[in-house]
Amino acid sequence: MDPLRESIVTLARTAKTAAHSLGAWSSSLKNAALLEMAEELLSSEEKILIANAQDIVAAEKQGSLDRLRLTPERVAALAEGVRSVAQLEDPVGKVIEEWTRPNGLKISKIRTPIGVIGIVYESRPNVTSDAAALCLKAGNAVLLRGGSESFRSNLAIAQALQTAAVRHGLPEGSIGMIPFTDRVGVEILSQLDEYVDLIIPRGGAGLIETVVRHARMPVIKHYHGVCQAYVDKETDFEMAQAIVLNAKCQRPGVCNALETLLVHQEIAPEFLRRVGKSLGEKGVEIRGDEATQGILNGQALAATEEDWSAEYLDLVLAVRIVDNLETALSHINRYGSHHSDTIITTNAKTAERFLQEVDSAVVYWNASTRFTDGNEFGFGAEIGISTDKLHARGPMGLEELTSYKYLIRGNGQIRE
Amino acid sequence: MDPLRESIVTLARTAKTAAHSLGAWSSSLKNAALLEMAEELLSSEEKILIANAQDIVAAEKQGSLDRLRLTPERVAALAEGVRSVAQLEDPVGKVIEEWTRPNGLKISKIRTPIGVIGIVYESRPNVTSDAAALCLKAGNAVLLRGGSESFRSNLAIAQALQTAAVRHGLPEGSIGMIPFTDRVGVEILSQLDEYVDLIIPRGGAGLIETVVRHARMPVIKHYHGVCQAYVDKETDFEMAQAIVLNAKCQRPGVCNALETLLVHQEIAPEFLRRVGKSLGEKGVEIRGDEATQGILNGQALAATEEDWSAEYLDLVLAVRIVDNLETALSHINRYGSHHSDTIITTNAKTAERFLQEVDSAVVYWNASTRFTDGNEFGFGAEIGISTDKLHARGPMGLEELTSYKYLIRGNGQIRE
Repeated sequence: MDPLRESIVTLARTAKTAAHSLGAWSSSLKNAALLEMAEELLSSEEKILIANAQDIVAAEKQGSLDRLRLTPERVAALAEGVRSVAQLEDPVGKVIEEWTRPNGLKISKIRTPIGVIGIVYESRPNVTSDAAALCLKAGNAVLLRGGSESFRSNLAIAQALQTAAVRHGLPEGSIGMIPFTDRVGVEILSQLDEYVDLIIPRGGAGLIETVVRHARMPVIKHYHGVCQAYVDKETDFEMAQAIVLNAKCQRPGVCNALETLLVHQEIAPEFLRRVGKSLGEKGVEIRGDEATQGILNGQALAATEEDWSAEYLDLVLAVRIVDNLETALSHINRYGSHHSDTIITTNAKTAERFLQEVDSAVVYWNASTRFTDGNEFGFGAEIGISTDKLHARGPMGLEELTSYKYLIRGNGQIRE
Repeated sequence: MDPLRESIVTLARTAKTAAHSLGAWSSSLKNAALLEMAEELLSSEEKILIANAQDIVAAEKQGSLDRLRLTPERVAALAEGVRSVAQLEDPVGKVIEEWTRPNGLKISKIRTPIGVIGIVYESRPNVTSDAAALCLKAGNAVLLRGGSESFRSNLAIAQALQTAAVRHGLPEGSIGMIPFTDRVGVEILSQLDEYVDLIIPRGGAGLIETVVRHARMPVIKHYHGVCQAYVDKETDFEMAQAIVLNAKCQRPGVCNALETLLVHQEIAPEFLRRVGKSLGEKGVEIRGDEATQGILNGQALAATEEDWSAEYLDLVLAVRIVDNLETALSHINRYGSHHSDTIITTNAKTAERFLQEVDSAVVYWNASTRFTDGNEFGFGAEIGISTDKLHARGPMGLEELTSYKYLIRGNGQIRE
């Protein structure tokens, strides 16, 4: 076996063994371990910042430094994130449903850990501690594989977590980190269904495609967000404008930010002039269809077919004028990524049709798409936003990191 | 594109289009379609029986005719199965959870169809109508691919269902059937994640491995059942014997039948002599470890390592004597298939530990493993028994054939 494969197999096997005993850990023991992990992050601040400085130097050629950079405040936020997971209710053992059959069998459906969860990510280093804390709290072992950009930072964070975990007596392998970032490592990991029960890829299309192509275990994709807003003909202009500006500009680099605006033709001239002015002031580039260009003369560039399914993650907005709700619905279901979409209307009937017919994880009426987030949902924390339909859809909190089993208590029942 | 691939792609694409409109069908329209499908099965009885007779002739060389053979009574049972699905409550649109956030956003988590479900099976022809009815009721299009043994019967059944569906106005492609049984068809289907949202393989290891190796979409495996019973030292001999006999003999050819019996050493001599006698009378072959062979002198053959993980589906039982609960637990978690396991004990503390620590879909205390079944759970019907941990575990009823989405109703909320 080549050494790369061998090291990943060893990590995965150790994680599986850890998972067997982790499932039986009590909430209080897990919480104490989490608090110790938070402390260790703080006392490893120097090591983490040095590692991060090396990442920054290496990345300076490529830009995107801000999302990568750690500071003492950001390390404190990592620790605070882990502490907040300790505060959350433990989902393991929770009774989901319970009923008694006519033959007297008492059936209880209870939450269990999943086992070993592989997290493959390219994002900021905070994912390392957030994901480890959440997986652990739900009784799972975690196997992390971060991106090359934040490689040293991820490793330093993981080492702090592991040190605390081991000191606290958590089984070895509870928090594993693959110590290299070759893409082939993702391929190898994706094939180890003997040890890894679930793999969650968070990142670009290339990374997700690698996992999907090779995975033998279940995959929950955290894919991109092409979020769309439809401003109906019956609408409150103030509200519509506030929602569009918030969804587009408040934090354009995230998956729940707005990428496409659809406007009903009847109100398009007036509404687009208003919202166009505000968007312009915020520095948003507009790419519109012909009708939009006509209304915003000069302000809108021409949109191409690609713009309707683009995730800009930037101050760019695609705008299209539609003749009715049906056109809006078919545009949304065709070009969007089934992540988060919103309608702004004063007509409840129109809104309800939109809510029912848009096939997305989260569908809004008169609210910003930016609320698609575990914290905003009240989940306390999230491992990410699933764009899949099986097991978990939308924000994934602790419950989505669990499986279940049925316990059946009888008194001698046999089947006739 | 080769013609095999082309025909499957066309079927899958048509199913996807059907799924888009099926999701919005009301319960009453779906139920009326199901009743018409049941009628059509009855009026197609002759065609179905002729097709089945051809299957029987072709299979005569291989045996296993009983599970394949249809009779007028069995066709009536198919129709009755479809009718009973019409009686079940429609899961689509059901509110799973609903809460209001401090900012006034009202979040509703509601059930939705999954989309297109591919069912790949090798089992008896009744799966064709059962699976189609359940998928349809949950608002999904279904794409069936049956085994070669019952090929003609499956086709005749599917044609009856399709005829009724079309007459009733269901979209074309709501019930698709791949009209050939080459294994390469399974490979092609497994790669069409653009159209197929979930694939459920039911069958032998080879079939499941083909799907797992090629699938790009989520897979819920319906794998084998190595079900195990542990008879504790503190036990009711009558009850233990009745449960073991029922779990092993009542219907040995199914996945929830007992395959391995573990007995605590303290009661092994007495219990094994009692249960050995009854098992012998039922014609059950015993394969035991050395201690078992010693007790049952002559009645038990020697078990090999393979016996502990064998799914006999026959009147064969592996028997092992264990020194305590811990040995039983580690045997069960190591050799079983995490399907259904039972403990027979009068000690509640021992039972609770067993229930918590056995990592199986269904864990019993003082009951037969034969109750792992959608009907026995009160689900009304089942698409099968999932041996996976994600999305669905254990018996899969209508709810497990749905996804969900979040509807969020606001009044202008934006994120600060």
